[in-house]
Amino acid sequence: MTVRFRHAALIGKYQAQGIRPMLERIAEFLSRRGLEVSVDRDTAFNTSWNDYGALTPEQIGAACDLAVVVGGDGTMLGIARELAAYNLPLVGINQGRLGFITDVRATDWEDALGPIVEGDYEEERRSMIEGGIWRDDEQIFQGLALNDVVVGRGAFASMVELRVDIGGEFVANMRADGLILASPTGSTAYALSAGGPIIHPAIGGWVLVPIASHTLSNRPIVLPDSQEVEITIVNGRDTSASFDTQRLASLLHGDQVRVRRSAQSVRFLHPRGWSYYATLRRKLRWYEGVV
Amino acid sequence: MTVRFRHAALIGKYQAQGIRPMLERIAEFLSRRGLEVSVDRDTAFNTSWNDYGALTPEQIGAACDLAVVVGGDGTMLGIARELAAYNLPLVGINQGRLGFITDVRATDWEDALGPIVEGDYEEERRSMIEGGIWRDDEQIFQGLALNDVVVGRGAFASMVELRVDIGGEFVANMRADGLILASPTGSTAYALSAGGPIIHPAIGGWVLVPIASHTLSNRPIVLPDSQEVEITIVNGRDTSASFDTQRLASLLHGDQVRVRRSAQSVRFLHPRGWSYYATLRRKLRWYEGVV
Amino acid sequence: MTVRFRHAALIGKYQAQGIRPMLERIAEFLSRRGLEVSVDRDTAFNTSWNDYGALTPEQIGAACDLAVVVGGDGTMLGIARELAAYNLPLVGINQGRLGFITDVRATDWEDALGPIVEGDYEEERRSMIEGGIWRDDEQIFQGLALNDVVVGRGAFASMVELRVDIGGEFVANMRADGLILASPTGSTAYALSAGGPIIHPAIGGWVLVPIASHTLSNRPIVLPDSQEVEITIVNGRDTSASFDTQRLASLLHGDQVRVRRSAQSVRFLHPRGWSYYATLRRKLRWYEGVV
Amino acid sequence: MTVRFRHAALIGKYQAQGIRPMLERIAEFLSRRGLEVSVDRDTAFNTSWNDYGALTPEQIGAACDLAVVVGGDGTMLGIARELAAYNLPLVGINQGRLGFITDVRATDWEDALGPIVEGDYEEERRSMIEGGIWRDDEQIFQGLALNDVVVGRGAFASMVELRVDIGGEFVANMRADGLILASPTGSTAYALSAGGPIIHPAIGGWVLVPIASHTLSNRPIVLPDSQEVEITIVNGRDTSASFDTQRLASLLHGDQVRVRRSAQSVRFLHPRGWSYYATLRRKLRWYEGVV
Repeated sequence: MTVRFRHAALIGKYQAQGIRPMLERIAEFLSRRGLEVSVDRDTAFNTSWNDYGALTPEQIGAACDLAVVVGGDGTMLGIARELAAYNLPLVGINQGRLGFITDVRATDWEDALGPIVEGDYEEERRSMIEGGIWRDDEQIFQGLALNDVVVGRGAFASMVELRVDIGGEFVANMRADGLILASPTGSTAYALSAGGPIIHPAIGGWVLVPIASHTLSNRPIVLPDSQEVEITIVNGRDTSASFDTQRLASLLHGDQVRVRRSAQSVRFLHPRGWSYYATLRRKLRWYEGVV
Repeated sequence: MTVRFRHAALIGKYQAQGIRPMLERIAEFLSRRGLEVSVDRDTAFNTSWNDYGALTPEQIGAACDLAVVVGGDGTMLGIARELAAYNLPLVGINQGRLGFITDVRATDWEDALGPIVEGDYEEERRSMIEGGIWRDDEQIFQGLALNDVVVGRGAFASMVELRVDIGGEFVANMRADGLILASPTGSTAYALSAGGPIIHPAIGGWVLVPIASHTLSNRPIVLPDSQEVEITIVNGRDTSASFDTQRLASLLHGDQVRVRRSAQSVRFLHPRGWSYYATLRRKLRWYEGVV
Repeated sequence: MTVRFRHAALIGKYQAQGIRPMLERIAEFLSRRGLEVSVDRDTAFNTSWNDYGALTPEQIGAACDLAVVVGGDGTMLGIARELAAYNLPLVGINQGRLGFITDVRATDWEDALGPIVEGDYEEERRSMIEGGIWRDDEQIFQGLALNDVVVGRGAFASMVELRVDIGGEFVANMRADGLILASPTGSTAYALSAGGPIIHPAIGGWVLVPIASHTLSNRPIVLPDSQEVEITIVNGRDTSASFDTQRLASLLHGDQVRVRRSAQSVRFLHPRGWSYYATLRRKLRWYEGVV
Repeated sequence: MTVRFRHAALIGKYQAQGIRPMLERIAEFLSRRGLEVSVDRDTAFNTSWNDYGALTPEQIGAACDLAVVVGGDGTMLGIARELAAYNLPLVGINQGRLGFITDVRATDWEDALGPIVEGDYEEERRSMIEGGIWRDDEQIFQGLALNDVVVGRGAFASMVELRVDIGGEFVANMRADGLILASPTGSTAYALSAGGPIIHPAIGGWVLVPIASHTLSNRPIVLPDSQEVEITIVNGRDTSASFDTQRLASLLHGDQVRVRRSAQSVRFLHPRGWSYYATLRRKLRWYEGVV
C-alpha cells in the first residue's frame, strides 16, 4: 500500500452534534495509514479536542497536502474559499443528506477514504469568481466566491436597476429583484432557483441570471469567464452585493461590482466512480418525477 | 488601399425578388477594388446571370478566400454548412430584418463591405456539431449542424422516450416532445423557444434543452463539447432526428444519434463595431419591454 | 347500511393483464351490497366474461347510476368523454401508479368502494371543452375534451402561425410548435409540460399555453371559459388539431378551431379525505425535492 | 346630451410636474358638462389649488359618483384601495406611458372623458384581496390589496420557509425567496416577473407564485378565491409581508398571513373600445418580438 498523501488536515462543522467522535475515528484511520494528522484550530477549540496539532488555515495551507472536511455544502464552501490560495485537495464527508460538492456519506467514509489516500480518486477542479466593489474609483470591498456573486435589492425597495458591461462592452440594463452571476458550481444553487440552466464544471464560463426580472424576455446568458463583468448600480435603495456569504449592503448609485475568474481554483477529490450526472439526478430529481 | 482578399464568391437566396441587381452591384464593387469575382453556380443559374464565372461550392472552397452571402439566417445556415470544410470567411447581407448571423443591412452594404475587403472587420468563429445516426452498429445517416440537432416525436405520438449518455456516462432518461442539442449559434434559435439559455459563441460547449418535458425538474444543461453525446431512442413512434434542416424520420427503438464537436468551424466577418450583445438586444428585445 | 346507488357499470382497461379476476371480485362485492351490476360490452367481450349483463355505453348511460372504472388516467379520460352526456358519477381504480383522476389504489379498492356505495364520498365536477373545426364555413370535425385541445405543427414544419380570438376579440398572433387550450383537469397534463400553471378544478376558466413559442414574452394566460375561443391557422404545413386523443391532421390555412365550455361535465367520486393538493404533491413532487 | 354622472372628484399625483394646469382643464371640462367638481384634499393642498371644494377620501366616497385620477398605475393602486369601500367608478388618465389600469392618454383625455361622462364606456370590476397577520391568535396587521400579497425573506436571510393552507387544507411547504398571492390585476405585475401566468380579470381566482423557489417543481397554481389562504412563517429571519405597498417587517416564526377575497371591488371605466388583450400586447409586447 502506497499512500499518496503525507499530511492531512481535519476540519469539521463543529456546531454539528457528535462530530468529535467521528473526527477522532478519521484521525486514527489516517494516522494508521501513515499520514500526519493536524486539526483545524477552530475545530479543535470548539470540540475541545487536543490530541493532534492544531493549525490555522494558513498553516494548513503551508503544511498539509490533503484536507478532509466533515459537514455539508455550506461548510465546504467556506473552507474551500479559505484554503483556495493553497491548491489543497479537499474531500467532503457529509453527515446529513449528500450535497453537490460533499459526496462521501458519513456511514461510508472508511470505504471512500481508504482508496482516496492511496491515490485512487476522481479529481475535479472548480473555478472561482473574485472581484470587488468600487465607489468613486476606490475599492471598498474585496471578495471571492465559489458559488456566485449576487447583487440584490434591499428589503424595502421594489427592485434594483443595474447596468451590465462585459469586457468593457455594454450588455444590458435590467430591472429586477437582483442579478446572479454564478460559476458552474453555483449554477445548481441559487441561480437554479432563479431559473438558470445547469452548467457543467468543465465549462469555462459562468451564467448571468436575473431574479424576478421586470422584462419578459429575461433569459439567462452563459458567458465566457475570460472577460471581466461589471455591474453598475443605476438605481435602487439599499442594494447589496454578496460573494457567496460575504456581503456588503448599502451600495450607492454608481457603485460598481467588478468580477473576473480567479486564478485560484478548488480541487475536490471524489471516490472513484463518482459521477457529476448521478449527483444531479439524486439532488435535483433531475428528469425524475413525471407529469 | 490594400485589399485583404483576392477572390470573392457571391451567393444569393435566388428566390428572393430583385436579388440580381443587388448581386450585380456587389460584383462590380468588388471587381473595382481588384478582387476576382465568381458566382455560385445555382445562384447564377437561377438568376440567369452569366457575367462572372460560375463555380460549384467545392470550386468556391478551392478557389475563393471570401464569400459574400445575400439572404437571411436560413440561407446563411445552409451555405455555411456547405462551405464548412474550406475555412472560407463569410459576410452576410440581409435584405429583410437583420438576423443573428447576417448582420449587414441591404441598404448599408457598401459602407460595410468597403472596410471589410480592406481587412478592417471583426472575425468570429462558430463551432459546428457533426454526427450521425446508428442502427444495429451501422451508420444510416450523417449530418452537420451549425444550429442544433433535434430528436423529436412523430406527429402521431404523444411523446418520445430518450436516454442520454455523455462521454460514455449515463446522464438521464427523459420523456418529452423532443430534445435539442444546440450550439452557441443555435442557442438563440429553437433552443431558446424551448426554454434554453443564451450561450455566448466563445463558450466551448453546447446546451441540451428538452421540449415540453414530462418532468417538472427539466432544466437545460450546458455541457462541454469535448465529449460525444449519444441519444438513444428508448420508445416512440415515428421519431425523427434533424441536423439543422437535414432530417431523418422513422427512427426505430434502439437507434442512436451520436454527435461531437466538428473539427470544422464557421468564420463570420462582421463590420468593425459589431457587437454580439447589441444583436441580442435588437433581435430578442432582450431586457427591453417592461412589466 | 343504506346503499346510495342502484345499478353499477363495470368498465376496465381490458388489455390490462389479470383485470378479469379483479372485475369479478368488484362485481361480487357490489352485488352483495344489493347493487345491480352490468359490464361494459367491450370489457365483457375482451375478457370473455359473461356472468353479468353487457351494456353499450349508451345503455350504461340510460340504466346505471354509477360507473366503476379500472385503469389509469388515459382509460378514464376516454370513458369520461363517452359517458359525459349521462351525468354518471365515476370512480377510478388504478392498477398501476395512482393518477390525477384515478385515485383508488387497486390494493385498497374494498376499503374505498364500501363507503362510496353507501354515499360517503367527495364529489367533484370537472369541466369539459367542446368544439369543432371549420373550413370555409363548414364544420369538418367535432370534438369533446376533458384535458385539452392542442393545435400543433406537422412533423415536417418548423412551426405553425396561429391567430387567437376570444369572444370575437383579437387576442394575439403567435408562432410556435403549437398551442394548448387546457381545462383545469388538463392543466396538470401536457400544458404543464409546456410551461403552464396548475389550475384548480373549481376555477371557471382554462389556460392557453404556447409550445416552444418563437417569442420570449410567451406567458400562459388563464381565461374565463364563458367565451368562445377561436384559433385560426394562419400558416403552417400539415397542422393538426386534437381534442384529447381525437385528432384531425392536414388542416389548411384559414381553418378555424372553435371551442367553448361544454354544457356537460364529469362527476368524479373520491374516497372521503381525498385531497386535490395531496394528489399534486404526490404526482408532481410539487414543492418537494430541493435545490 | 345627457350626463350620467353628477359629481366628480379629481385626484392627482401631485408630485407630478405641471399637473395643476391639466387638473384645471379637466375640472372646467366637467363643470361645463354640468357635473359638480370637487378636488381631493391632498391634491388641492399640494397644488395650492382652491377653486373647487376640497374633500377627504371619505367625503369623496360619500358625495361623489365618479373619480378622475391623473397619474400612473401606482397612483391608481393607492387611490383605488382608499376608495374601495365606496364603490366609486374610477377613470385613469396617464401622463406617462399607459399603464395596465390607467389607460387614457394625457393627450387624449378630452376625447375619452366626453363619452364616458355621458355613459358611453366599458366598465370593469377588479377583485381585491383583504386580510391580516396574526401572532399568537392576535391580529397585528390588517391590509387590503388590489395587486398582491407578498411574503418575502429579509435581506440578510437566504430564504424563507413557508407553509400554505387553503380552506383549512394543507397545500405545501416551500422554501424560496418569497411567495406572491396575486389577484388577476396583480398577475401582470410582480407575479409575472416571478414567472406566473396572466390571469384574466373575469377569473374568480388568484395565483400563488413562488419567488426563486428552492424546488425545481415550483409551478404557479391558480386557486379559486372562495377560500381563505393561510401562509405560516415556518422559518426565516426578518421575514416581511406586504399588501400592495403596505408592509409589515420583522415577522416571527409562527406568524400567519391570512387572506380572503374582499367583499369590495374596484370599478374602472374605460373608453369604449378598450381591450384587455390590446393592453397586454402593448405593455408586455406579448407575443410580439420573435426568436
